[in-house]
Amino acid sequence: MKDLISTSLKYQQGQLWVLDQHQLPDQENWLECTSVEAMVDMIRKLQIRGAPLIGIGASLLLAHLAEQGCDTPALEQAAATLRDARPTAVNLMNCMDRMLAALAQHGVSALTGCAEGIFEEDIQLCLNMARNGAALIAPGARILTHCNTGSLATAGVGTAIGVIGEAHRQGKGIHVYVDETRPLLQGGRLTCWEMRQLQVPYTLICDSMAAMLMAQGKIDCILVGSDRIAANGDFANKVGTYSLAVNAQYHRVPFYVVAPYTTVDPQCPDGSQIPIEQRPAAEVQGVSGSFGKVRWSPQDAQVYNPAFDVTPAKLVTGWILDTEVLSPQQVEAGALSRL
Amino acid sequence: MKDLISTSLKYQQGQLWVLDQHQLPDQENWLECTSVEAMVDMIRKLQIRGAPLIGIGASLLLAHLAEQGCDTPALEQAAATLRDARPTAVNLMNCMDRMLAALAQHGVSALTGCAEGIFEEDIQLCLNMARNGAALIAPGARILTHCNTGSLATAGVGTAIGVIGEAHRQGKGIHVYVDETRPLLQGGRLTCWEMRQLQVPYTLICDSMAAMLMAQGKIDCILVGSDRIAANGDFANKVGTYSLAVNAQYHRVPFYVVAPYTTVDPQCPDGSQIPIEQRPAAEVQGVSGSFGKVRWSPQDAQVYNPAFDVTPAKLVTGWILDTEVLSPQQVEAGALSRL
Repeated sequence: MKDLISTSLKYQQGQLWVLDQHQLPDQENWLECTSVEAMVDMIRKLQIRGAPLIGIGASLLLAHLAEQGCDTPALEQAAATLRDARPTAVNLMNCMDRMLAALAQHGVSALTGCAEGIFEEDIQLCLNMARNGAALIAPGARILTHCNTGSLATAGVGTAIGVIGEAHRQGKGIHVYVDETRPLLQGGRLTCWEMRQLQVPYTLICDSMAAMLMAQGKIDCILVGSDRIAANGDFANKVGTYSLAVNAQYHRVPFYVVAPYTTVDPQCPDGSQIPIEQRPAAEVQGVSGSFGKVRWSPQDAQVYNPAFDVTPAKLVTGWILDTEVLSPQQVEAGALSRL
Repeated sequence: MKDLISTSLKYQQGQLWVLDQHQLPDQENWLECTSVEAMVDMIRKLQIRGAPLIGIGASLLLAHLAEQGCDTPALEQAAATLRDARPTAVNLMNCMDRMLAALAQHGVSALTGCAEGIFEEDIQLCLNMARNGAALIAPGARILTHCNTGSLATAGVGTAIGVIGEAHRQGKGIHVYVDETRPLLQGGRLTCWEMRQLQVPYTLICDSMAAMLMAQGKIDCILVGSDRIAANGDFANKVGTYSLAVNAQYHRVPFYVVAPYTTVDPQCPDGSQIPIEQRPAAEVQGVSGSFGKVRWSPQDAQVYNPAFDVTPAKLVTGWILDTEVLSPQQVEAGALSRL
C-alpha cells in the first residue's frame, strides 16, 4: 500500500500509525497498529475516534493484514470484529462492507486499492463539504460547535470543522464557540487544539452555557458532525447535540449537520433505530487523560453515560453533505434514502 | 451569641466555623472565620456557597464582630464589604440590609439577635418550602436537579433538595437525576454527597444528557434553586438552568424554582437587571479541588465563564416559596412584587 498521511492517521513504509487522541493535546504520541485486537482497543478507548476516521483506520488495517498474508476467511473475521467495535457510527460498518465486497468480488489483492480509495475519497469528501458549508456562513458569523469534527475525526479537513476552516480561509472573520463536550472533553482538548492550528479565533465554554449565548444573540449558527444519519434525516451525534438542537429551535438559530454520504444509513428508517453506545461510569465520575486523572464524585455513584444522542430531523435547518446541502423539504421527500 | 449548628455552618462557643465546600466530598475541613477579609475570600472561592447560606454566614460574622467590640462605623463598613462579595445572589444583600437596619435602629447590641433570627428563620423557611414542594411530587417521580441546593446551601434542609428530601421521607419512592453542573461540579461533588446522606436513589449525569432523558420520558419534573428572583418571576440560578428550562418547555416537563422569600428581589423588575458574575477562565480549562487539579485545554484558551444564567418567567411552571406555591398567573398579577 502506498504512503497515506493525515493529521491523525498514517500508513508509511508498510506500517500503520494512529495518533493517540486520548493523550492530546499535551502529548503527540503515534501508536503502531498491527492487529485487529489493537485497533478495537484503540477505538473503544477513543485513541482513534471520529465516525469517518475509525472507518478509514479499520480499512487501512484490513488492507495491511491482507498484504501481510492473511487469507480470505481470516480477513472476513477481522472485518466482522472491526465492524462491531462501536455500535453507533455507521461509517465503520459502511467501510467494512465495502472492503468485504471488494474481497468477495476481486480477492485479497483488491483490498489495498479499496483502502487507498477510502482514505483518498474522504479527503475529497471533506473538501466538498467545506465548500458547500462555507457558502452558508455569513461574514462575521459566530459559530457554535460541539465535540470534535476536524482533521482528528477524518482523513481530511473534517466535517463541521472543515466548514469552519474554509469559512476562515475565505476571510469571513468568523468566531467559534467551542462546547467543551463532557464527559470526554473532545471540544476542550481537541477542538481547541484544532482551532489553534487553523488560527481561528475561538472561545471555550461549558456545554451548559450555549443556551445563554443563544439567548444573548451571540450565536449565528450551529455546526455539528454526525455518527449516523437515518433515511428520514434524524441523526446520532455526540451526546449534548440534541440539547443544542432544541435550544437552537427555541432561539431561531440555524442548526446544520455536516457529514459525508458515508455517514448516511439509508437502511435505517429513523433515529429510534440507531443503537446508542453506553460508556463506563468512571468517565462521568471524573476525568482522565494525559493531563492526569481525578474523580470528584462517589465511586459508587450510579451513572448514565450514553456516548451519543439522537436529534430529530424536524430540528435541523440543513444537511451539509459532500454532494449538496439538503433542505428539510428535500429530506422529507426522501433525498437521503436515495443516496 | 448562642450556639447555632447546621450541616455546613456553625457558631459554637463564640467561634464561627465554615465547612470548606471546595474540599467536599473528600475532606470535611472546618475553617474558623474571624474577619471580613476571610469571609469574602471564602465566598469568592466557594468554600461557603449557596445563596441563602452566604447571607447567613455573613450575618453571623457581623454579629460576632459586634460582640468582639467593633463599633458602628466599622460594622457598617464590614456590612458594605460583605454585601459586595458576590453580585448575583440577593440573599446576601438582603441579610446585610437587615443587619444594618437593626444596627441603625437598635445599636450594636441588636446584631446578635438579628443574626440568630436570620439563621433560625432559614431553617423554618426550608421546612416550609419542603412541605409546599413535596405536595407537588407524584409517587414514583423521577426528578432532575441542577447544582446543589440542600443543607450545604442553606442553614436548613435546603430549597430544591429540601423538597426532594421531604418527598423521599414521605415514602414517595422518588429517583433523582443529578446534573454534574460544570464547571464547579456542585452536582457531582455536593448533591451526590447529599443524596447519599439522605439515602435518596440517584443517577449522576453530565449536564448535556438531561435533554435526552427528557426526550425518553424519564424526567417527571425539574426542581432548581435560585440566586435571585425578579419581581416579574424571571430568576437567576447556576449556569445551565436556562438550558434545562428551554428543554423542559419543549418536552412539556414541569419546571419549578424553589426559593425562600429572601431570594426574591421586588426592586428588580426583571431578569435583565440581575448582574451576572463572571468567573476565572481556569475553572473551564480544567477542574480543581481536594480531589486534585488538572487542565486539559490550552492555558491561553479564551473562555466565557458566567456563574449564572437567567431563566424567564414564561418557562416556569411554579415558584415554590416558603409561604405558598405561586402559579404563572399569580406571578403575572404581581404576587412577587408584593412579597
